[in-house]
Amino acid sequence: MVSQANKPCDLVLFGTKGDLARRKLLPSLYQLEKANLLDANTQIIGVARHEVTQEEYVALVHDALSTFMKEEIDQDTWDRFSAKLNYAKVDMSNPEEYSKIKDLVDQVKRVTVNYFSTPPSIFGAICEGLNSAGLINDETRVVLEKPIGHDLASSKVINDQVAKYFAEEQTYRIDHYLGKETTLNLLALRFANSLFASNWDHNCIDHVQITVGEEVGIEGRWGYFDDAGQMRDMVQNHLLQILSLIAMNPPISLNASDVRDEKVRVLKCLRPITKHNVKEKTVRGQYAAGAIKGKPVPGYLEEEGANTQSNTETFVGIRVDIDNWRWSGVPFYLRTGKRMPEKLTEIVIHFKNMPHNIFKDSYATLPANVLTIRMQPREGVEVQVLNKVPGLDDHMTLQETKLDLSFSETFKEARIADAYERLLLEALLGNQSLFVRRDEVEGAWKWVDGIFKAWDETFDKPKPYPAGTWGPEASAFLMAKDGREWD
Amino acid sequence: MVSQANKPCDLVLFGTKGDLARRKLLPSLYQLEKANLLDANTQIIGVARHEVTQEEYVALVHDALSTFMKEEIDQDTWDRFSAKLNYAKVDMSNPEEYSKIKDLVDQVKRVTVNYFSTPPSIFGAICEGLNSAGLINDETRVVLEKPIGHDLASSKVINDQVAKYFAEEQTYRIDHYLGKETTLNLLALRFANSLFASNWDHNCIDHVQITVGEEVGIEGRWGYFDDAGQMRDMVQNHLLQILSLIAMNPPISLNASDVRDEKVRVLKCLRPITKHNVKEKTVRGQYAAGAIKGKPVPGYLEEEGANTQSNTETFVGIRVDIDNWRWSGVPFYLRTGKRMPEKLTEIVIHFKNMPHNIFKDSYATLPANVLTIRMQPREGVEVQVLNKVPGLDDHMTLQETKLDLSFSETFKEARIADAYERLLLEALLGNQSLFVRRDEVEGAWKWVDGIFKAWDETFDKPKPYPAGTWGPEASAFLMAKDGREWD
Repeated sequence: MVSQANKPCDLVLFGTKGDLARRKLLPSLYQLEKANLLDANTQIIGVARHEVTQEEYVALVHDALSTFMKEEIDQDTWDRFSAKLNYAKVDMSNPEEYSKIKDLVDQVKRVTVNYFSTPPSIFGAICEGLNSAGLINDETRVVLEKPIGHDLASSKVINDQVAKYFAEEQTYRIDHYLGKETTLNLLALRFANSLFASNWDHNCIDHVQITVGEEVGIEGRWGYFDDAGQMRDMVQNHLLQILSLIAMNPPISLNASDVRDEKVRVLKCLRPITKHNVKEKTVRGQYAAGAIKGKPVPGYLEEEGANTQSNTETFVGIRVDIDNWRWSGVPFYLRTGKRMPEKLTEIVIHFKNMPHNIFKDSYATLPANVLTIRMQPREGVEVQVLNKVPGLDDHMTLQETKLDLSFSETFKEARIADAYERLLLEALLGNQSLFVRRDEVEGAWKWVDGIFKAWDETFDKPKPYPAGTWGPEASAFLMAKDGREWD
Repeated sequence: MVSQANKPCDLVLFGTKGDLARRKLLPSLYQLEKANLLDANTQIIGVARHEVTQEEYVALVHDALSTFMKEEIDQDTWDRFSAKLNYAKVDMSNPEEYSKIKDLVDQVKRVTVNYFSTPPSIFGAICEGLNSAGLINDETRVVLEKPIGHDLASSKVINDQVAKYFAEEQTYRIDHYLGKETTLNLLALRFANSLFASNWDHNCIDHVQITVGEEVGIEGRWGYFDDAGQMRDMVQNHLLQILSLIAMNPPISLNASDVRDEKVRVLKCLRPITKHNVKEKTVRGQYAAGAIKGKPVPGYLEEEGANTQSNTETFVGIRVDIDNWRWSGVPFYLRTGKRMPEKLTEIVIHFKNMPHNIFKDSYATLPANVLTIRMQPREGVEVQVLNKVPGLDDHMTLQETKLDLSFSETFKEARIADAYERLLLEALLGNQSLFVRRDEVEGAWKWVDGIFKAWDETFDKPKPYPAGTWGPEASAFLMAKDGREWD
């Protein structure tokens, strides 16, 4: 068991009444308490602008837990957990009100960890408030929720606002995909297994597919989403993070700077997409009316609150080329969309075909080996190999079979922790490895901005696809013209 | 379904009343009939020196099937099968009696396939008899059971006797390990899967272990076994065949000469074992009294009929070095013995350790990946990899987990055919790939003879080991001095 490095913390939760805090952060903190991973002296200070008494706040947290957790609240855990809860009513735009937080924290005995679960537009104001109240010292940390900007320029503004008060070593940018069990297992698979490590390059890998399919549509957030689109909402952060972890060179160690140095190097090598190649490298889609599991659902432009002229994409497919030694000639195909047939996140590594086929009597083309890393719905790892089919009929009939490792089946007793549990724990422990460094955010924006520019310059409009399908036909064509297909 | 190439056959089974014929050959032929793999016009002609009527022979075969098969005899199959049976009483040493076989075969409509399930000492006499009766033409085949000789010189004598009448293309030498499902799957694994193919050399593999453990002792064959010993009985044939298939370079095709060309090249590269290195490279053992699964069993020298001064080995452990480009520095460790704790045949490929360990906080030394190809008891393939253990306690605790492919579980409906079924079928079809070529037999003997010579010159005596253990302690030391251990 890991004990907290150095000191207990004052976790100051800005936006404690918001959706993320109620759905994810408070339940995750409860789970950490349950697992005895919170220091006995750690405090949680909820901050919001509402007038709420201590008792009301405790009741609010209890309500969030019982609403969003799939398990019963354990009384003993709750007793310990609720004793850690405090509330401060703060108008975050008013620096004078931050003294109320100061009354609750102890900057000598504990480390202040500020979690900004608020719109990024007020990150700067919160920093100023904390500073004016004398709440920032060299130990103080800040945890930032996405979206960090809308493009490179706006992300720099936000990062600069924060950087005025917090050094990069104090700044923890959340990408919850980095807290997922399978993401971490990817590091184990790649760097603890010579069978994979020695095959992890252009000599052995033909291409990589990364799919993040969402079954949901806009869920009442039309306005927010329409400003962002799938590219900003999913590709710039989650998909490029996964891609970086798959593609990075082996890091010197697992410490934060070594891992992030390698990830950022991948982002630097992404081949720019410009007006000259955007048509062949990208597909944008927007869902039309269709059906999910047999139930009719409206199109994006028919959702409540929709601007019927919107050109925002709800689907993106991209062929990414990485211009470095390891990946020369190996495309990474990304696709992500809303209103796909199922909720599915998986990474599929397609190895190269055998250079020579001695089984052509039974297989004109031998299928290549495939390694699948599933993040959703059922976390696991699967290797597809060719085996001989037992029997006498022909002494070399081959068949694809799967060597399967399901997390839930293999580690039966283990409960798979939510990504936020891990990330909150790491932030409290002061370990930055699983957080996104500024140069990563900016590297990703730089490349993504190029795509937006190319779309603009070519007057690209999203192609409609029926809800409940894997995106527009052009997505299949993106692969087909390279002689490949989506899994 | 494969139909018989060209023609139906007259399968002439010399030694039809012997143990092998009754236990294996006749039941296997029955299974081929059941699977409709025997041509309707194929005949089986049992040959022995006893006076037996046609009816008695059919009854004898029925008895063999019901004694040695694990399933009920199917009446319909039996009707078809028994109609194919014929018997010829032949004193095999008397050339004049072979005309009785001639009366039963049809050399125009069918191919004569002679199966010598007799002691090799009479292979020459049978060939002469067949020849004098005019029973050999260019199509005629001969199937030879082991042992082919006692050493290189005596194997040449036997092979010469046969070669006087049968060309190498007509000669099918049995090694039943080559008919096993897993042996064939080894070819599929190696040459249809880039994941393994690209890792199959000294860059990626640390060492290979081949274990053929027998639980049984001498089973009343003391005299026979004492002349041979475990080296001649198992290593010269089965273990070196398996080793050749694992170590060979990719063959141009699966046809008989391409595969056997590559196998024989491996045998040519085996580093000779001489009096100078025999002590460090080999271990001989002889079982003493002990217990198998809790039941006491006598030692080798206490078995019925034993010469109490015998120095015959019942266990051999060898470190084999293959002096070629692919395997430079990669030892193959072989061990085989009687009265081991269990009946077990497996090939274990140990991949190299990762060159750099970034997980040293949880694992001082990362265990290497391991590929296990199990031939007995439960045929299957298993890959051992390292995965992250789910959980928050430490974000990188690794654990070895197995990606498992069991034949019986994966191919549930399939009955695993006995090796003899396949080999008989291949002999009837005229496909030599799964039979041992003369240069293979001789290459293996040449190397094995060197070991016997070295043992003689160094006055080596087998070391005792208790029945029910994995051989003498020296066997563990054979690995330990290389910093390795048996699985």
